[in-house]
Amino acid sequence: MAEDKLPKRSEDFSAWYNEIVTRAELAEHSPVRGCMVIRPNGYGIWELMQQALDRMFKDTGHVNAYFPLFIPQSFITREAAHVEGFAPELAVVTHGGGKELEEPLVVRPTSETIIYSMYAKWVQSYRDLPILMNQWANVVRWEMRTRLFLRTMEFLWQEGHTAHETEQQAEEETLRMLGVYRTFMEEYLAMPAVTGLKTDSERFAGALRTYSTEVLMQDNKALQNGTSHNLGQNFAKVFGLQFQSREGSLEYAWNTSWGVSTRMVGGLIMTHSDDNGLVTPPRVAPIQLVIVPIFKTDAEKLTVMEAAEEVFRIIKAAGVRVKLDDRDSMSPGSKFYDWELKGVPLRMEIGPKDVEKNTVVIVPRVELSQEEAPKPGKKQKLFISRTELLARIPQLLDRLQSQLYENAKARREANSIRNVTSYDQVKELVARDAGFIYAGWCGSAECEAKVKEETKATIRVIPFPEFQSAEKPSHCVVCGGSAKHEVIWSKAY
Amino acid sequence: MAEDKLPKRSEDFSAWYNEIVTRAELAEHSPVRGCMVIRPNGYGIWELMQQALDRMFKDTGHVNAYFPLFIPQSFITREAAHVEGFAPELAVVTHGGGKELEEPLVVRPTSETIIYSMYAKWVQSYRDLPILMNQWANVVRWEMRTRLFLRTMEFLWQEGHTAHETEQQAEEETLRMLGVYRTFMEEYLAMPAVTGLKTDSERFAGALRTYSTEVLMQDNKALQNGTSHNLGQNFAKVFGLQFQSREGSLEYAWNTSWGVSTRMVGGLIMTHSDDNGLVTPPRVAPIQLVIVPIFKTDAEKLTVMEAAEEVFRIIKAAGVRVKLDDRDSMSPGSKFYDWELKGVPLRMEIGPKDVEKNTVVIVPRVELSQEEAPKPGKKQKLFISRTELLARIPQLLDRLQSQLYENAKARREANSIRNVTSYDQVKELVARDAGFIYAGWCGSAECEAKVKEETKATIRVIPFPEFQSAEKPSHCVVCGGSAKHEVIWSKAY
Repeated sequence: MAEDKLPKRSEDFSAWYNEIVTRAELAEHSPVRGCMVIRPNGYGIWELMQQALDRMFKDTGHVNAYFPLFIPQSFITREAAHVEGFAPELAVVTHGGGKELEEPLVVRPTSETIIYSMYAKWVQSYRDLPILMNQWANVVRWEMRTRLFLRTMEFLWQEGHTAHETEQQAEEETLRMLGVYRTFMEEYLAMPAVTGLKTDSERFAGALRTYSTEVLMQDNKALQNGTSHNLGQNFAKVFGLQFQSREGSLEYAWNTSWGVSTRMVGGLIMTHSDDNGLVTPPRVAPIQLVIVPIFKTDAEKLTVMEAAEEVFRIIKAAGVRVKLDDRDSMSPGSKFYDWELKGVPLRMEIGPKDVEKNTVVIVPRVELSQEEAPKPGKKQKLFISRTELLARIPQLLDRLQSQLYENAKARREANSIRNVTSYDQVKELVARDAGFIYAGWCGSAECEAKVKEETKATIRVIPFPEFQSAEKPSHCVVCGGSAKHEVIWSKAY
Repeated sequence: MAEDKLPKRSEDFSAWYNEIVTRAELAEHSPVRGCMVIRPNGYGIWELMQQALDRMFKDTGHVNAYFPLFIPQSFITREAAHVEGFAPELAVVTHGGGKELEEPLVVRPTSETIIYSMYAKWVQSYRDLPILMNQWANVVRWEMRTRLFLRTMEFLWQEGHTAHETEQQAEEETLRMLGVYRTFMEEYLAMPAVTGLKTDSERFAGALRTYSTEVLMQDNKALQNGTSHNLGQNFAKVFGLQFQSREGSLEYAWNTSWGVSTRMVGGLIMTHSDDNGLVTPPRVAPIQLVIVPIFKTDAEKLTVMEAAEEVFRIIKAAGVRVKLDDRDSMSPGSKFYDWELKGVPLRMEIGPKDVEKNTVVIVPRVELSQEEAPKPGKKQKLFISRTELLARIPQLLDRLQSQLYENAKARREANSIRNVTSYDQVKELVARDAGFIYAGWCGSAECEAKVKEETKATIRVIPFPEFQSAEKPSHCVVCGGSAKHEVIWSKAY
């Protein structure tokens, strides 16, 4: 049972993804359609993501708060674009305590309305600004076609909500938090993110401007996994969020909101994992190193277990998240298979000969280019003296972290097609899921809609300068008109 | 405005509580009746509680997971006692995505049903046990009479859910986690908790046995702020949570559940705070020390701020949660008032003379018996050399933490009335809110109900041996029959 092969990525990416999520015990469907159960292996990854992000939010001056799950239905309908965007996705509580409610309550799909209605009470003067708050919460959006982590009816996220004196300060905040997301994704998730501006058609319901991070998955579809919105004064006007300015006039505040969710766990899987199972970057791996003792006789067991336990204690004391797999009911081979499937970055093997030689064997989950290459057709094995362990383990974890980022970045670059000038070529590239397609766009919603309808690709972002091609496209790849922007087309999750 | 006096505890405890919650900006009512907004000052306390508890749960072998917010209505009704307990409190989603649902969904009031239905899928053999999981989540119970933190429609909590091979293991787990709660309350919240068994009438809906922690508030009412339940096989039988035992037979698992919530924040306020505002034990204080610079001239400002910033850096680097209050728009006196109201454990004052003498003044929020006594009618002021700061600040924080615990424990002891043998005396004691009343009880639901009806006091717990009186009561204080237990009577939140 345990050693059934996973489907191959190249043959059925979607089945491969589902099997990894299930077999690595990351998440599971619940009895309520569209809602997932996040199992400890998956939740452990999310907890590490939360801890890192929370530190980054606090380092940029934000504090946490908590706002209600329920929002009066009338609040949602006050901002015209907002209600249009969210109305079809709402879960509605109509009964409470055995009675029908006078006004139905909406289960929050996002919290702009309830939060800005509270800010309106708290803010009188410019001295009360900026407000820089974040909340960690669950939200519900009614979805028909759900996939574990990627699109679920209920998901966990954080939503930052800020209020500022000026448009410029709000724009700076919007971009700062997009930058925090990008840094987090690159440094913790080893996911190279392209950042840029969303087109009007992909803008958050109620925002002036939406920016996003887009990461190329192994099937060459894009995953939008973080968004940051400059909300302008739209919500401030609706909820009366006003302040007395430095000049004494009464002004509406400028708001931003930004969020990332458990969707990132899905993105992590689709970025790094392979046909043997999950691959987890060490910085968000609940177990970074697993020790598998190997022995045959009782005498061997005694010496090997003693060595394994000592190594375990030393490594744990050094702050590494380490597990000693002392299960009696499984063979070492089955354990190797199990931990590979579950994505543990480093496996350590200790057998009687290793104890004799005072060494251990380390097998990294992904081949490290900075270490000695493996024999052809074999796994990379690193023989390490026990006296060097405390120096080597953190180094190997760092190397694995960097390696994953480099691999993902190289893959993205190899699958970024620039300077595409013919629409036929766009169609052909999209049809074979070629990756990120860089091309000119005239800025018209018509050309954007035409591509979406005919190819299912969308404009992921108008990329920031550092991602733009050296040569700026001159013409729209769809209509041939003058190009206003270089944009990235791709199918997406 | 800022210097309006708080209501006095002795005159109107309830108004005093509400004003502290609002003025210290801990929480606020939301537009949805019964739901609260937890503001950053209150949420910061909750975050520190979470971190400490989460470590304690993990140290006792538990892992975190996440289960859905929504539960099929039919699940709730499967366990007879459970549905009877929770049916009147349910919020029900009847519409989703613009359509009426075939089966309404209940917003979780607690998660036994959904969680044990999942465990039933995961457990086959005794090898899969124990399951030791916890989740941090929001829950909803429809409440008509709500009070911020103490009783709200939505609240934040953790719920631990475990499954075991034997009844004994489940009972051990139930008591272990009750012990974790007690330790946490005493060591972090400085709240002395009485632990014991709940009577049948106060048992969790669906449990075999419920244990709780009870803390005496300053108005001499009890607050139940943690419960731990041995669920027996009730839920296992309803959801088919079975396993193959070591002997090969098919058995139902034994479950426990245990939880604490944001209610603890309310308990913290009512245990320690005074007529000047909030008092926070240092270990859960988001700001442990505030530095208030004092100066008149620009020249003084320069030297004082330089010293204040240096002290700030040094203390912060030592891991103390410190804030430098450099607001220009407020006088030092207003700042003192503000931070007293907000419950910061230590205030540091630095003026020009302190800079000259290389000292600072520390004013503890609560008088420390281990430090030099204040002059009559004055606040305790400690003059500390700057060279001693790094040693003294952590020491003072520890002393304040212990002092709060000692104060609360002495108050509880002074308000515990033991060996009460006449029912008239019980009535008189309850009528004047005398505190924890220890008396004999025959074990009958009738006597229990009679006291509740006639005095509004309930049996808080059948206390564990260490809390029992030296002399065991022989007779039931109500009916005069033979006493089965010594119990604690008190009004409660």
